Amino acid sequence: MNQNELKASVGNEAAKYVENDMIVGLGSGTTVSYMVDSLGKRVKSEGLNIVCISTSNRTADQARCLGMNVTSIDKVGHVDLTIDGADEISSDLNGIKGGGAALLWEKIVATNSDRNMWIVDESKIVDHLGAFPLPVEVIPFGSQHVFDKFKKMGFQPSFRTNVASALVKTDSNNLIIDLHLGKISAPKELAELLNDTVGVVEHGLFLDVVDKVIVGKQDGIETIDRIEKFANAN
Amino acid sequence: MNQNELKASVGNEAAKYVENDMIVGLGSGTTVSYMVDSLGKRVKSEGLNIVCISTSNRTADQARCLGMNVTSIDKVGHVDLTIDGADEISSDLNGIKGGGAALLWEKIVATNSDRNMWIVDESKIVDHLGAFPLPVEVIPFGSQHVFDKFKKMGFQPSFRTNVASALVKTDSNNLIIDLHLGKISAPKELAELLNDTVGVVEHGLFLDVVDKVIVGKQDGIETIDRIEKFANAN
Repeated sequence: MNQNELKASVGNEAAKYVENDMIVGLGSGTTVSYMVDSLGKRVKSEGLNIVCISTSNRTADQARCLGMNVTSIDKVGHVDLTIDGADEISSDLNGIKGGGAALLWEKIVATNSDRNMWIVDESKIVDHLGAFPLPVEVIPFGSQHVFDKFKKMGFQPSFRTNVASALVKTDSNNLIIDLHLGKISAPKELAELLNDTVGVVEHGLFLDVVDKVIVGKQDGIETIDRIEKFANAN
Repeated sequence: MNQNELKASVGNEAAKYVENDMIVGLGSGTTVSYMVDSLGKRVKSEGLNIVCISTSNRTADQARCLGMNVTSIDKVGHVDLTIDGADEISSDLNGIKGGGAALLWEKIVATNSDRNMWIVDESKIVDHLGAFPLPVEVIPFGSQHVFDKFKKMGFQPSFRTNVASALVKTDSNNLIIDLHLGKISAPKELAELLNDTVGVVEHGLFLDVVDKVIVGKQDGIETIDRIEKFANAN
């Protein structure tokens, strides 16, 4: 299978976890778009009754086009299950997200979800986080100073630009600084440092967030469950 | 003297601290507007050569109208001195800011300033912070959930609205939730909790930020210097 076929297979598998009467969080990215397609089919064919909220305007548009009931996160009291992608997942089930610049809304939805599921192809599974550049969402005002601080700390920052070399703006009209760290040896300490940096809105480290990971591999689908994994480890 | 006369007197006093060739941060609020008036006069009458950056669009407009050289914070390498107001200052020189909804840009400028001066009338000096509602700037997306969390924690939150009962939008297009805490007994722990809350962009606790406070009192102007104060305390 090529990468797109792997993504489609996990998207299809993940959509099976959605149950009637759920409030479902829809993430962002290509793997999620396959899942949304699959979920849309279930809504039509099975009459599945769900309410969706989304972590990006793009996914919300896709879901609406498929006839799904999409509302705002601020109009629901909770979210039962959020299904999202990830750019890297380490062996201890932490992740980097934000390759698609939607990390802020993704983290807000994840934080307010009872359960979080990530769906990836096997290329996203790593021993340690950090080969994938860590996205940090920053307020435009003063962003050059945040950039300079990161540079002094050796974080090798770069402002995210689009194909036309213009600065990428997030759905909240902020900028993205990508940190080229190579290997993140202390994710919690780094998260704390970024949380405490004035001008930083949010960062792409998602620690202790995910409950279940579905991985598309050449030899089939692997499901990793946080509780089972860490119960077995003890 | 009435309160406006007190504010004008400290504004006038603070403007004297600005020296030739400085990069000066201009804060927000009515006391600051008196200082900017006074500084504008010095620029005209003495030919004082300074570059200004501002913590709000409103102050930037005022300074430009007075013929001052205003640029963006991201175009200067550092800021020599920032002069700003405060809504409350405690005896240990911590403060609450953000009554004017400009706390985010104010904190970004303060963090990047070599020295910070706050100018207030004596009504702002308190034993403990918290009688003034603590402003928290939040991303609109998911803000109802942040509000609900604050409510559960007993923080007595309220969304800031304007006279037309519409939600107040900050210069960065975010919302303000005011926390009615009464008395903040552990400011550092509260700041840490707010920094770690997903959806919170910044909060109005300014801890260990100010170097000098100028207080307008009925019996004259009092100047409190952090180094002198804490040197004397030991």
